[in-house]
Amino acid sequence: MDKIYDLLIVGGGLAGIAAAIYAARKEMKFAIISPEFGGEIANTTYVENYPGFASIDGKELAQKYVDHMKSFENLEIIEDAVTEVKKEGNLFWVTTYGGTFKSKTVIWATGSKYKSLNVPGEEELKSRGVTYCSTCDGPLFKNKTVVVVGAGNSGLTSAIYMKDIAKHVYLLNKNPTIKGDPVLVDRLKDPKVTIINSSRVKRIIGEKKVESVAIDNNGNEELLHVDGVIVNVGYLPITEPIKGMIEFDSFGYLSTDNKQMTKVPGFFAAGDVVNNPYKQLVVSASDGCVAALGAYDYLISQKHH
Amino acid sequence: MDKIYDLLIVGGGLAGIAAAIYAARKEMKFAIISPEFGGEIANTTYVENYPGFASIDGKELAQKYVDHMKSFENLEIIEDAVTEVKKEGNLFWVTTYGGTFKSKTVIWATGSKYKSLNVPGEEELKSRGVTYCSTCDGPLFKNKTVVVVGAGNSGLTSAIYMKDIAKHVYLLNKNPTIKGDPVLVDRLKDPKVTIINSSRVKRIIGEKKVESVAIDNNGNEELLHVDGVIVNVGYLPITEPIKGMIEFDSFGYLSTDNKQMTKVPGFFAAGDVVNNPYKQLVVSASDGCVAALGAYDYLISQKHH
Repeated sequence: MDKIYDLLIVGGGLAGIAAAIYAARKEMKFAIISPEFGGEIANTTYVENYPGFASIDGKELAQKYVDHMKSFENLEIIEDAVTEVKKEGNLFWVTTYGGTFKSKTVIWATGSKYKSLNVPGEEELKSRGVTYCSTCDGPLFKNKTVVVVGAGNSGLTSAIYMKDIAKHVYLLNKNPTIKGDPVLVDRLKDPKVTIINSSRVKRIIGEKKVESVAIDNNGNEELLHVDGVIVNVGYLPITEPIKGMIEFDSFGYLSTDNKQMTKVPGFFAAGDVVNNPYKQLVVSASDGCVAALGAYDYLISQKHH
Repeated sequence: MDKIYDLLIVGGGLAGIAAAIYAARKEMKFAIISPEFGGEIANTTYVENYPGFASIDGKELAQKYVDHMKSFENLEIIEDAVTEVKKEGNLFWVTTYGGTFKSKTVIWATGSKYKSLNVPGEEELKSRGVTYCSTCDGPLFKNKTVVVVGAGNSGLTSAIYMKDIAKHVYLLNKNPTIKGDPVLVDRLKDPKVTIINSSRVKRIIGEKKVESVAIDNNGNEELLHVDGVIVNVGYLPITEPIKGMIEFDSFGYLSTDNKQMTKVPGFFAAGDVVNNPYKQLVVSASDGCVAALGAYDYLISQKHH
């Protein structure tokens, strides 16, 4: 007979790792599936907002999470990417490039990716002035000049936050007027902030780090000299493999109850795929912990039926 | 004119500390109020479920949290206990033994304390055989006889831990069958453990230290000769100072929205005072993070009015 897992965790970032730590402690029959482990922070220079580490290199912190997970003898790692999840009866069929695995519960913790601008220079200067998270990296631009790209609520919030840190903030808005919350626009009024409407980034320029951006402003090319480019044009949760199985909110995120279970019984979600108001490392860790304990309790409740 | 804070954080455990870390990063005008810092884990031997630390002494981890918080220059600590919180207009008046402080927002993160049995002898013999934390005090009962009161998951976990230390363990269960997790019940099967169902403690007896407990077992009084009484009958959130201001759920916990705000605008809650299904360190940390970011966003939205 095929092996049937209690739990399959999909995703190797902190949400998945935290879930694995708790599942291991509960001695569940589980595996964690991901092509790589440690998550997005491995690409971050310094992390200063995960309680317990005042300041730590992102790669080092990611390694600590992985080491913690690997300290459990009953851990099974499947190094592969999930391509499809289906529910058949009471079981989830989780398909990867290498095979299909069956499980009574699943925690979906694949995270989200920042939407890119897809302009020349962006990829090359990532973490060298180009960032997608002002809360994470804003303090690096103290007394420097930055451009925030995107004037939705997250761009506005970034710009408000940055005007108290940076020397000057440009806000690039692709529309002729700002469509974000007026309250945020009011808060942005400051001589240190220049809003440029009807404009887009054409390319990001710099040798070793960001030096300027070329923008298209109402059809005219202009050059802004900046030290940082903060891209806030939205997120994309990674949910392609579960599109046939579950519904999303209007932004593509998963909704859960207070034990991180979605509307599909036995299917849990944790971390940046969830419609949490704040995408933070410690929130992902908490989600993973709660999802694993939730899956454990769900299995116990099923046994009584 | 009196100083008015953006935010006062009440509580020095991980929820409060995480809130302080995020408030400091947002450069809010804030203070954290508590008679002591580091939280309950400082009394724990080992912590192995806070992602990032595979295994760490509780006191050492608590110190790391405190050090992280103190790494911010804009941190203001008020070492005092809060006795009352009132809302006057749009401001919260937070009173301590030493004074009254005014703030636009408050994060309540005072945690919870162990529930007492409220039986004769309990108060008198506290720390003289009566304890509420097997992890803290279990080793004191090496090769002695103890009774664990309470057969929920925390009582079961205590009894499992104590059976490897004590000579004999009685487990008192008020119900006719055990309602805790079956896995834990399985692990408890041991000739050194006696489970007594349908029973309650009537009084704790001893001159200088615990000598016995009188129990009501199905209506009959019995005497158990024990050296220790480990009380695991649940927790009580610490909310006395806010009783006049806010409503609680039927167990005395606070309900919040997804930004940790209670029904009282500007009043947030984080950690073990919240009706989270699982009380875990990393959940408290996440709550504190979200509450601080929620308070920050709330202040921005208020400035518009």
